[in-house]
Amino acid sequence: MTYCVALRLTEGLVFLADTRTNAGVDRIATFCKMKVIEHPGERVIVLMTAGNLAITQGVMNRLQEEIELDGEAWTLRTVPDLYRAARLVGAALRTVYAADGAALAAHEISFEASIAIGGQIQGERMRLFQVYAAGNFIEATDDTPFFQLGEHKYGKPILDRVVTKDTTIDEAIKLALISMDSTLRSNLSVGLPLDLVIYRNDELQVGLRRRIDSDDPGFRAIRERWGSALRDAFKSLPQPDWK
Amino acid sequence: MTYCVALRLTEGLVFLADTRTNAGVDRIATFCKMKVIEHPGERVIVLMTAGNLAITQGVMNRLQEEIELDGEAWTLRTVPDLYRAARLVGAALRTVYAADGAALAAHEISFEASIAIGGQIQGERMRLFQVYAAGNFIEATDDTPFFQLGEHKYGKPILDRVVTKDTTIDEAIKLALISMDSTLRSNLSVGLPLDLVIYRNDELQVGLRRRIDSDDPGFRAIRERWGSALRDAFKSLPQPDWK
Repeated sequence: MTYCVALRLTEGLVFLADTRTNAGVDRIATFCKMKVIEHPGERVIVLMTAGNLAITQGVMNRLQEEIELDGEAWTLRTVPDLYRAARLVGAALRTVYAADGAALAAHEISFEASIAIGGQIQGERMRLFQVYAAGNFIEATDDTPFFQLGEHKYGKPILDRVVTKDTTIDEAIKLALISMDSTLRSNLSVGLPLDLVIYRNDELQVGLRRRIDSDDPGFRAIRERWGSALRDAFKSLPQPDWK
Repeated sequence: MTYCVALRLTEGLVFLADTRTNAGVDRIATFCKMKVIEHPGERVIVLMTAGNLAITQGVMNRLQEEIELDGEAWTLRTVPDLYRAARLVGAALRTVYAADGAALAAHEISFEASIAIGGQIQGERMRLFQVYAAGNFIEATDDTPFFQLGEHKYGKPILDRVVTKDTTIDEAIKLALISMDSTLRSNLSVGLPLDLVIYRNDELQVGLRRRIDSDDPGFRAIRERWGSALRDAFKSLPQPDWK
């Protein structure tokens, strides 16, 4: 399983992904689910993947080569805008589906993949998309400024209640880590280390890229303090008077 | 969909269930998913059901009649202990499966049902079980003092972090309502009103039974305050120093 969360805030973008993959409970491995393409001053594109690892690795491999859109050939390093970048990802997904979909279906394996892609290209505003297995996609908006991939339910309530487009990047880092921690506790197939990337609007270079493991002091402090902060929060609630 | 939570604490039992059922998004109805059997001074048994409504109503109807266990015929009103009460529920599930399972399978409808049953019968300790669709069951223990039925993921992190066997009933009421509120916000097919039942250890009568709707002042206060309490809690967390 996988849990990834991407936030598109006025201040910038925050991406957080776990690294665990599994096939059953006894075939566990660590794979980076995040890819960063950075030409400082010109473009930053971040991708995060969830779903069947053979499919998502196939897509990432396909994206190394040129893909034709509207009669022109592009890669993520050359594409002139993020809308086309999302279309490239969709096209790569469709290529993999065309190659592997029937064989997977014969083995009753569903074609599961979803990919978040966000960033900024010079001359364009910052954008964030979520691409589905069928290659179609949606874009994050001010109303819904975050996307979750994979095992999303455990970590959703805290995001639903707190995140707005005006959440700061510093707040969003904490929220993403809390959301991830809730998921790590409840689903063993989501696991450390984590990959975190921050992008600040209009900077056209990665603001922070960090691998976070269980001994990371910043993450440890959040994990340890969040439990007691939650307990204090619920103790502060009024007791219903139904006697 | 459904969300029910049952807690077995040293102080007593807490049961909370939503009332929404749906078949698709445009066939929504309200059904009570909780049944209370009370002979004050002798027994209190509370059942909550999740899954296919035709199945769970079939089970509840079957439980109105005598069911044979080990050569004797019992109902929930006569059974001498809660272990046998859970077995009665399992037997009723198997009767419904024998009657309807093949027809449901022909329509590719899976036989989905799970039932929480808890309470106390004179001369016996308080117990809580969760009965699966196959009619087998597990019992809540000090290590895992709560069961969730139905749409459990959104409301699980708060329970995982806070509930122990020594949680008080008053605390557990608030926690169950917070857990339910997180689920209500994230899944439209879980809906108000709620049914709440409290049982205090060794009292052999229901401690509190209440239907809670959106205008319930106690529940409203918790819903309104929890959002701001969560925001305050996350703001109190230390910012990771990764610069």
